[in-house]
Amino acid sequence: LSLPLDAAALAARPLADQSPAERVAMLEAVADALDAAAGELIPVAAEETHLPVARLTGELARTTFQLRLYASEVTAGRVLASRIDEARPDWPTGPRPRLHRLRVPVGPVLVFAASNFPFAFSVAGTDTAAALTAGCPVVVKAHPGHPALSRLVAEIAGAVLPAGALTLIEGTETGVAALLDPRIRAAAFTGSIAGGRALFDLANGRPDPIPFYGELGSLNPAFVTRAAAARRGADILRGFVDSYTLGLGQFCTKPGVLLVPAGGDAVQVLTALLAGQPGGPLLNGAIATGHRRVRATLADHPGVRVAVPGTADDTGAAPALLVTTAERLAADPDGLLVEAFGPTAILATYAHEDELIAVAQGLHGQLTATVHGEADDPVVAPLIRELADRAGRIVFNGWPTGVSVTAAMHHGGPYPATTSALHTSVGTAAVDRFLRPVAFQNVPEGLLPSAWRSGVTR
Amino acid sequence: LSLPLDAAALAARPLADQSPAERVAMLEAVADALDAAAGELIPVAAEETHLPVARLTGELARTTFQLRLYASEVTAGRVLASRIDEARPDWPTGPRPRLHRLRVPVGPVLVFAASNFPFAFSVAGTDTAAALTAGCPVVVKAHPGHPALSRLVAEIAGAVLPAGALTLIEGTETGVAALLDPRIRAAAFTGSIAGGRALFDLANGRPDPIPFYGELGSLNPAFVTRAAAARRGADILRGFVDSYTLGLGQFCTKPGVLLVPAGGDAVQVLTALLAGQPGGPLLNGAIATGHRRVRATLADHPGVRVAVPGTADDTGAAPALLVTTAERLAADPDGLLVEAFGPTAILATYAHEDELIAVAQGLHGQLTATVHGEADDPVVAPLIRELADRAGRIVFNGWPTGVSVTAAMHHGGPYPATTSALHTSVGTAAVDRFLRPVAFQNVPEGLLPSAWRSGVTR
Repeated sequence: LSLPLDAAALAARPLADQSPAERVAMLEAVADALDAAAGELIPVAAEETHLPVARLTGELARTTFQLRLYASEVTAGRVLASRIDEARPDWPTGPRPRLHRLRVPVGPVLVFAASNFPFAFSVAGTDTAAALTAGCPVVVKAHPGHPALSRLVAEIAGAVLPAGALTLIEGTETGVAALLDPRIRAAAFTGSIAGGRALFDLANGRPDPIPFYGELGSLNPAFVTRAAAARRGADILRGFVDSYTLGLGQFCTKPGVLLVPAGGDAVQVLTALLAGQPGGPLLNGAIATGHRRVRATLADHPGVRVAVPGTADDTGAAPALLVTTAERLAADPDGLLVEAFGPTAILATYAHEDELIAVAQGLHGQLTATVHGEADDPVVAPLIRELADRAGRIVFNGWPTGVSVTAAMHHGGPYPATTSALHTSVGTAAVDRFLRPVAFQNVPEGLLPSAWRSGVTR
Repeated sequence: LSLPLDAAALAARPLADQSPAERVAMLEAVADALDAAAGELIPVAAEETHLPVARLTGELARTTFQLRLYASEVTAGRVLASRIDEARPDWPTGPRPRLHRLRVPVGPVLVFAASNFPFAFSVAGTDTAAALTAGCPVVVKAHPGHPALSRLVAEIAGAVLPAGALTLIEGTETGVAALLDPRIRAAAFTGSIAGGRALFDLANGRPDPIPFYGELGSLNPAFVTRAAAARRGADILRGFVDSYTLGLGQFCTKPGVLLVPAGGDAVQVLTALLAGQPGGPLLNGAIATGHRRVRATLADHPGVRVAVPGTADDTGAAPALLVTTAERLAADPDGLLVEAFGPTAILATYAHEDELIAVAQGLHGQLTATVHGEADDPVVAPLIRELADRAGRIVFNGWPTGVSVTAAMHHGGPYPATTSALHTSVGTAAVDRFLRPVAFQNVPEGLLPSAWRSGVTR
């Protein structure tokens, strides 16, 4: 298997040595080119992914905004992140040399594109934008769900990028071979737990292990206190349906379970809301088949009752609602607290608010956890504290879908939400994954590449 | 095998929720207790490690300085590292919620203590100090090279630490079992490539992989340009001997190879300098045996000549000097550019300065690389640029031993120098390894643990 990685390897040095102005211009050129090609890109994306044009239009805007936001991090000096400790003869551990630490790109990055965001988590998506911002050449393994779009984006971006900055490869075997190639210095992945774990194991098993940033799976539980249910129950139930059926549930932050007090009419309200929810084709056959299987397994669980069966076949699905109790969730977290990627969710009722804590304690790592409560609910603070031990983002009186692209965002979490809980794949901190520090001890600034010098003009 | 990890697991929450003032007081109490016990500690350390009292006294001071320096990071707010993005209805990716991101401790950390720094990289050393600073309980697997000292330090520190904050375990089997225990959430290691890689593989093979920060091995090459040799040759050669024989070469930053121009008298000068260098016992039998074997393998290499044979047996060693050429280093990097942990070094001569670049390009990942040159040497900037791709610290006209404990220090590097090139085990950034971000979306500050709130009094 001959891998087209030479161009990426050759591009590593010139990209690393770009001036901040060159790096910024590169990122903005990609954003401008993609925006200019929207009329060409959107129809191809819609055809291949079955996603609506309005959603795709917004997603492309998110993607190009992201590139420009990352460019502004370069301008602000936060990519290089220079830190200088001047010499100090009197330092307690012995005379201190001058140390200038800065961050250099790790080298060529392999990005495994996702299916569910054909722009924002694909060829020119967040991982690619972050790696280019760091100064790393990118090799994207295209997602088979949108091959024509992948090629088109690679062509448009490639036309304005330096040689070797972006390489598109296709096919599982090629992706695996690239992951094992010594020229690849880090990898990023968004997808399933099974697929991501297999690639993580390969990356770590290399003679020279490389960082593998996998975003794998998340249930994204949502907890409703008794007081919140009493005051805003109808709004919360409507919000839940909107969030878990948005994009037919094909978001990594889809809330998969809602916990509400027993004795209310939540099942009836949700059933009525779902009656108006259409089904449709899912992103691709593999996702539809996987979703159908997980839904069936959950529906067959002895502790689960099917309230709204929906439909699910090997091409698409209509929303389903399953019902159980918090007690059962806590008793079988491995069977019930699992992700169903698609429009399937569980409503779980609790008798006592203590059960919310018990369910939280049974959770594996999560991207998000949501709490609907009143600020003076005594259960809210302890529940948030439990959830903070297990999730990367805690949403209060809102919904986890719609991940804002901003500096303070964290899109990550303990395993299996990600393979690297210290890192995020959304927001400006995503760039950190592709930079490693180097300390220059007593090195005159003039001996550093000009772009790395302190006081460099941005 | 029953593991004493319950106390650490129970301590995770109270440590995470400490106020900054409590965290600072905890770290300073350990520093004070160790300083106060110096008279008791130093003799035990000297007896077990064969290291001189002056060195051990300095190392203990470094260790307690480190604890106090890390405490100052808590006070400065750099551990929590709060970042708040206020709500913005007009944000380009949709109305932006208020996001407050901060860093929470990852949970109980397993530290594999090193042999060569019985204070600074052992029970209360840099990994332990960093983990406690992050708010993580620490389980230290004692190094068998200094068991009595390990127990004494654990007892003294344990007496002033909260319950469960520090647990000492002993034995390889126990250490491995702890690494695989779900209560352990991260691990740090300083030691050999073989041992570190085996533990790295175990950590990544867990059902829930955990970060493993291993500092494994490094050759720390030093390059001397023609101009530097001409102007300061004698000083450089003396500095090299001092650095590679310091502590009988038992430092991870020991320079293992020096490249000098051919045609000079470096071999004779070094031989004369080494004639005055005594040998002595190494830290322990395993290190002495390992060193003897690596030295013999290098000496038997067909491209190597023995200039100073030294002595080496299963308890100690006297310095040796081997001689080869840069051409041979570049031709067989895997055979010659390897670490010999102990007082063995290679002098390599070059005919053309281009050979320095070729040797640099054959290097695996390094903790450090050193260049002796003049600022106007044309080879220096390109050489530094090559080395920056492969090393975590570049030393100019100095020596890599004596790692300063400071904010801009980076003690890390690409594999096999470490298993995680983005992180350092020395300096204040070492704390970053044990913190993971959590973003709180629209969560009222009053619902967070008081120590996590923005505007918390430090």
